[in-house]
Parts: sequence; C-alpha cells; structure tokens
Amino acid sequence: MSREQQDLRLARAALSRLFEPSDAVGLGLVSVVGPRDALRIARREIGVGTGVHRGLAEALDIPDGGRRPLEDGLERWGPRLRDLAPERDLATLHRFGGRLVIPESADWPAALDDLQQTAPLCLWVRGRRGIPPASGLAALVGSRDSTAYGSSVTADMAAGLATRGCTIVSGGAYGIDAQAHRAALATIGGGDRAATIAVLACGIDRYYPAGNEELLRVIADEGVLISEVPPGSSPTRWRFLQRNRLIAALSAVTVVVEARWRSGALNTAHHAAGLGRPVGAVPGSVHSANSAGCHRLLRDGTAVCVTDAADVVELAGPLGAEPLGDRARADAAPVLDHDGLTVPDLLLLDGLPARAPTTVDKLSVVAGLSTREVLGGLARLELAGLAVRSDGGWCRRRP
Amino acid sequence: MSREQQDLRLARAALSRLFEPSDAVGLGLVSVVGPRDALRIARREIGVGTGVHRGLAEALDIPDGGRRPLEDGLERWGPRLRDLAPERDLATLHRFGGRLVIPESADWPAALDDLQQTAPLCLWVRGRRGIPPASGLAALVGSRDSTAYGSSVTADMAAGLATRGCTIVSGGAYGIDAQAHRAALATIGGGDRAATIAVLACGIDRYYPAGNEELLRVIADEGVLISEVPPGSSPTRWRFLQRNRLIAALSAVTVVVEARWRSGALNTAHHAAGLGRPVGAVPGSVHSANSAGCHRLLRDGTAVCVTDAADVVELAGPLGAEPLGDRARADAAPVLDHDGLTVPDLLLLDGLPARAPTTVDKLSVVAGLSTREVLGGLARLELAGLAVRSDGGWCRRRP
Repeated sequence: MSREQQDLRLARAALSRLFEPSDAVGLGLVSVVGPRDALRIARREIGVGTGVHRGLAEALDIPDGGRRPLEDGLERWGPRLRDLAPERDLATLHRFGGRLVIPESADWPAALDDLQQTAPLCLWVRGRRGIPPASGLAALVGSRDSTAYGSSVTADMAAGLATRGCTIVSGGAYGIDAQAHRAALATIGGGDRAATIAVLACGIDRYYPAGNEELLRVIADEGVLISEVPPGSSPTRWRFLQRNRLIAALSAVTVVVEARWRSGALNTAHHAAGLGRPVGAVPGSVHSANSAGCHRLLRDGTAVCVTDAADVVELAGPLGAEPLGDRARADAAPVLDHDGLTVPDLLLLDGLPARAPTTVDKLSVVAGLSTREVLGGLARLELAGLAVRSDGGWCRRRP
Repeated sequence: MSREQQDLRLARAALSRLFEPSDAVGLGLVSVVGPRDALRIARREIGVGTGVHRGLAEALDIPDGGRRPLEDGLERWGPRLRDLAPERDLATLHRFGGRLVIPESADWPAALDDLQQTAPLCLWVRGRRGIPPASGLAALVGSRDSTAYGSSVTADMAAGLATRGCTIVSGGAYGIDAQAHRAALATIGGGDRAATIAVLACGIDRYYPAGNEELLRVIADEGVLISEVPPGSSPTRWRFLQRNRLIAALSAVTVVVEARWRSGALNTAHHAAGLGRPVGAVPGSVHSANSAGCHRLLRDGTAVCVTDAADVVELAGPLGAEPLGDRARADAAPVLDHDGLTVPDLLLLDGLPARAPTTVDKLSVVAGLSTREVLGGLARLELAGLAVRSDGGWCRRRP
C-alpha cells in the first residue's frame, strides 16, 4: 500500500470517529479540502483560508454561510479530539480480520457514491469476502418482532435470491433481519461469494443485539460485517437511521418483508426510493399490524408488490444473473378472457349444450349468430376439440 | 309516459334481445339511426341508404367497411327475429316489479355513458329503489371460492362503506360477491337507500346461481337487480364478461378483495382501469392462491392497495359523503424519524444515559456536539420531558 493510501486511510478513520454519520459540515469540508487537510483543520493544526469557507458554504448550499458553519463544526468535534487514535482503531480492525475500505481504493462500492453529500467517509469491513457490486445485492429488511408469516416469507425469499446469485443485505437486528441472514447462510454458506452482509449501527467489534452474537460471528466468517463508525462505537438511534441509508445505497433493490405502521424499515425504504432504487413490499393480512407498514408503502406508491424471489429479481432489473423461473415466464402471458377464441366463437361455445345435441338453427338463435357464422364456428370449435357432432346435432366437448 | 318514450323503450327492449351485449355493429347502427329505425332495419322493414352504411363504417372506425358489416349483422340477428316480443318482455319485467331504464330517461346512470360505443342499450332493473349516481357506488368483487380471510375482509369493508353512505355493487355470485351483498344488507337493510346492487349476466327473473336465490330475492326487495339482457336470458360466459364492464362503469371505485391469478374479477378491474376509474386490491398472504390475482393487480400498477373502507373512500375521491375516520386522518401525518427533534438534539438524546447521570463534558464527546450545543439541547430536552437533571448530572427520562 502506498504512503498516500495509508495517509488517506488514517485520516478517514480518524474523521469517522470525529464526525457522526452524515455530519454535513464535516463531509462538506472533506469534499472541499480532502480528508487529510480536513483532519488537520479539525485538529486546528492549520488555519482556514477564505476560499475554504466559501467552498464549504457552496457545498452546504448556504450562500451567506460565512465562517459560522465551520466554527460550529470545530466546536462540535473538539471534545472528541482528545481520544483520537486512528492507528489503534485500525489495529483493532485488523485484529478482527477486517479492513478499511475508502473511496480512494479499488474495493469501494461505487453504488455508495449515489449518496453524494452523505456518502460515508469509509467503511469498517469485517470478513474475508469482498462486497459484491450493487447489481448482486438485495436488501431484505423488516420488523424485529416478526410474525411466523414474515419469518417464513423472509426465509423463502432470501433462499430464492441466494440461489439466483444474489447476496442478501440487512441490518443485524432480531426478526426479519436475522431470518434473512440465516436463510442466506443456509443456502450458500461456505462458498466463494459472501452469503450475506450485515450493516451495523455500531462498531464491527460489537455484537448488538447480544442475542444475535452467534449469528453475527457466523456472518463475519461466511459473509461481511460493515459499519461506518469505528470499532467500539455504540449503536445510537441516529446511527441506526443513518445505517439504513447504507443498506439502501449498497443494494440494487430493497424489500420490506414485514413492518408496522411506523417502523425503521420504512426509513430504509424511503432512503432507497430517494436514491431512485426500486423498493418492494411484501403484502400480508390486512388484520396483521406487522404488515400495515408494507401496505402503507404499497398504497403511497413507494413500493411495488413482491411475493417471491422471482418478483424481487424482476423488480431489480438486471440484478440476478440467473434467468427468471417458470412462474415468472408464465406471468408474462396476458390474461386471456376468451381462451384465444374470437367473440363469435365464444358466443357459439356459450350456446352449445353440454349434453343433448342441438341444431345449427337453434344455435344461431341462442348465440345470436348467422347460420354461416355458426357453421364456420362449429368447424373451428370441432378442430379445437371444444365441440363434437353426435346424433345429427352438436354439443360441447370439455377440452 | 309519452308515446315517444314508450316507442323508445319498446325498441331498446327488442334490440337488447336481438343483440348480444356490446354487439359493435348493432350499437353502431343505433348510434347512427337511433333505436327505432335500427329495429326497423334489423326487421328488414325499411331499406338502408348509403348514408347509413357510411355512418356505420365511421362509427365502427372501418373506413372501407362498405355494406358488409351491416349485412353480417342482419344475418346474425335474423334467427332471433321470430321470437321477438318486447311487449311480453316488458310485461314480465313489470310482473317482477321492475322497470326499463333507457339513456333517454331521467333515471339513466350517466356514468354508463363513459362506456361510449359499448354503453348498454337499456337496463332491465328490478327493485323499488333507484340507482344512486356513481359517486355513491363502490364495487366489491372477487372469487367465488373465497377464503375465510376474504369473507371477513369483504364483510368489514362492505359494512364500513355502507355506513359511510355508499351502496355496494357486485355480481350476485357465490363467495366475495354474496358476502358483499349480505354485509351491505345487514348494515343498511330497510332504509330509503338501496343497500346493494347486483348486476346479473342473466335476466332479472332468473336466480343464478341457484344457491343464491334467497339472497337475490332479498336484493330485489332491499336493493336493486340490474341486467342488460331481457327476462329469461341465460347467463353465458360472454354475458358474464360483459356484465363486468357494467359493474365497473356504474361505480366510482372497484375493489378486488380476493382473486386467483386468472379470475373474472381481474376482468372487472381492467374494465374499471380502462374507464379511468380507480381500482383497489386487498393484499393477503403470499401463500394464498386466492390473493395472487390481487397481488398481480398491485404489482402491475392496475390497482392501489386498500386495507379497509377508509382506504376505499380515499381512493374513490369524493365518493363518500362522510368525513374520513380518525385512522385516515392519522395517516396524513408524515413518518417522523426524529420525533420532531433536530438532529443535534437527537444525537444528544442518544447520548444520554438511562440511569447513571453524566456530565456536559462527557455528553459532548459521546454525542459529538460542542459544549454550547449540549447545554442548549439539554434545556430543550428537559422542557420536552426527555431529559432530567439529578445529582449534578443528566440522564434520560422516558416520555
């Protein structure tokens, strides 16, 4: 690794501890002067010229911002300077078999750039496997208090997506998140490809919630753990909300399997929609409070109805490498109201008795067709195996 | 009733027996020469000038149609001329307490004109009560083999809509149709307003299916039975499909409660969508084949997700007279990710310990905020009842 790469890594690692996720002034400063000078400015090691203030005001879209935004930022970051030790954080990361992924390195997920001003400073990544490009990632999210229905749909969907070559992205919470990870691990655990990716609101060295420790350990081994906050960081509500934007931005499609009327999963769905990424929602009983959030997304047009992995693959566009399944191909056929018959032939078929044969004359009255049309139609229906001649008359034949 | 009105009624009654529903040539002829001359032409009582052929070709949008379409029509209608007896049909209608509603009369449902070339010739109507305008009509349709879930949702939705002043329109079939009619009758049976309207594919003197005879008798009494085919007509597949367009055209909104992947209810939904009328679909378990058609409508954008009567009223726009319920008002509020807090105050709240009080200095490190921001934020959180000062420090207070 070049000296410059090391410096950039150290600077971004340090800034990711100074700044809370999506700190507008902090990220704006990095966009203006780069991470190394941003860290020097935060440490008050170098002064700040008028050009920087102007550039920052432009980045923040506050034309008359003056020096105030940055001064506020410096004041805000100050209390954390004392504990800053990026070398120690990186050492901790490496001890856990992790690596720091930064925008300047080749393994940076390009899809995160769609977050623009709120793109993360870096990703603290744990796990031997790489992060596949967004086209191979599908996010499955939902309630912590999932029902048996939600768990079953999640398991089927995650397994179906994994079979089709997708890696699952989720948080590391109880309920839908955990079920999605487990099903993906059970489907493609042990292969070259990451089975599943858990994006955490805390440091990748912490197991939160405690009940998922075993699962998170397996994900670190068979999949990938990702966080934008450094080791040791605790999961706060703000970090959970910001973590959701990473799940959405990493994935080609975000699916909400089960969610209450107000649920964090809806936040993830809105992040995905805001990025122009397709959002799916799984329908459920109108009597289930755990589906009310999904129905809300369907109703307001944020999400499209998805019922299985094939639906998700179709929604994601070129997400999966595998061709669509039989079910999906059958779907493409239009609804045929008439079974391919012309209207006169359908009228004739309607008029044919099931048992006692009838005459052409009677058929023309019953069906409202001319004798000519009845004769032509009977010939076609006979060919199609729908009509049969017997005892000098005609009757219907079940196909 | 004027002599002209009587003549028009007789002519339309006769034509509705000669022509199958939506007979393009027949309806085109009526649009060109009016119902009385159309009947005379069908009976070959008067000749047909070039102007009529030209007008008909124009109505049918076949520029070089020539004489062929009408000649085919005359040949088609011929076999039924023998049995034509509109006076007898009207007498039968009156014996059943019915009336013929025609476009030239004041009680014609104006919404049917949206069907344009396929608007029915007349409606054979049974029941003492009138047909409310479309703004007061909601169609609930679905599978004959409904599940307990579908029946329960239908009952709730029909009752909720009836309570809000809507009359329910459906098809008289087993399953969802019957349940919708029953729930509406149970809710507002006996009032001035028609509880429910059944649009039949057979004559209004026939009880089809036989198992619904008792229900259809009650609807004839408390609601309205409608058909575009004359008394005695049998229900054919063609008439079922055409009947669906009447259900859609009569109603401000069409809701599919339960439907299989290929179901007649989807045909009704597509008719409604084709008329530019809103369509709702009730979500259900992805494991239920009886919800697959609803999910299909949601997925392809034909329908909007509806979970209760309030959703249907909202979808229909100015359909119901009653104001929306509390649930609907609560829906209007946006999802508040931060409970109304600013981002710094949320960060501060995240940093406040639940039990052991902490200092302002520690809070500024944990939350990543300046001392000034922490002091201001604590004051606001204290006011909001979210933070409390104790033993010289601060901690969180559950709201």
